[in-house]
Amino acid sequence: MAETEGLPGSFGTSSSLAIRLGQIVFSTASLLFMCLDVDFYSYTVFSNFVVVMGILIPWSLTMAMVDAWSVFTDCAPRRRRRKTVFMIIVGDMFLSYILLAAAASTAGVTDAMIKAGGFCSPKLCSRYQLSAAMAFLCWFLLISSSLFNLWQLPSL
Amino acid sequence: MAETEGLPGSFGTSSSLAIRLGQIVFSTASLLFMCLDVDFYSYTVFSNFVVVMGILIPWSLTMAMVDAWSVFTDCAPRRRRRKTVFMIIVGDMFLSYILLAAAASTAGVTDAMIKAGGFCSPKLCSRYQLSAAMAFLCWFLLISSSLFNLWQLPSL
Repeated sequence: MAETEGLPGSFGTSSSLAIRLGQIVFSTASLLFMCLDVDFYSYTVFSNFVVVMGILIPWSLTMAMVDAWSVFTDCAPRRRRRKTVFMIIVGDMFLSYILLAAAASTAGVTDAMIKAGGFCSPKLCSRYQLSAAMAFLCWFLLISSSLFNLWQLPSL
Repeated sequence: MAETEGLPGSFGTSSSLAIRLGQIVFSTASLLFMCLDVDFYSYTVFSNFVVVMGILIPWSLTMAMVDAWSVFTDCAPRRRRRKTVFMIIVGDMFLSYILLAAAASTAGVTDAMIKAGGFCSPKLCSRYQLSAAMAFLCWFLLISSSLFNLWQLPSL
């Protein structure tokens, strides 16, 4: 299998699978921290956050499945297609932008709510903060998988 | 001059100069809308926004000056350097991420303030909104100049 592996972290390798699994873990944790509270839909920012997560999780799941298939069936030609990798880079970039926007606005609003006081109980506030922190970690993984793929693109 | 021009919008062309001038106009307008109010430093989000603008404006100014120099002195070799273009792409990408985060959090907090009521007068609120809108327009120009340069990179 070693000879069919591309650059570590690029589409179809086992390290890419690990990055995708990390994305799934962080984005699911972030969504759960936000959604187990029933009040999220009364704030525009938090609803937007949930929508972005609803797009991100299926994307990461699909990519993780394709990576797993590529790693375990050892199917090399699959990962040589330039167009596929390009589409994945564009998707990752797009998602990383909307995820960063959602995470930043969630963090900003949570911070403002804590400073203003009376808008959320300390427990609820810390849950929003945790959710934003998880989203930032997820963004970090998303941008790294996008950069690894971009790095490999010229050699395809 | 036509033969020394690269891909429209890429580093050193007159269309790139136009995009950079647009960035300067929008970011300066955004900063002025935010700063002419004296209260911005009492909110973390707005202070962050001002800091990001303080990084973005010198960057856009420098790039605009280099573009202008390249267009008016007609110096072709300048824009053939692969490393320079790569550095510019990285800088643009980095700035577009932090600008989007700042703009999104400003928009989110302004929206929350308007909904909660009593945090800002209608005139002040609409100024924050205008500032966020200008920042989004500036982000759009920033990402487009980054993409044009990225497009040109393989041909250098």
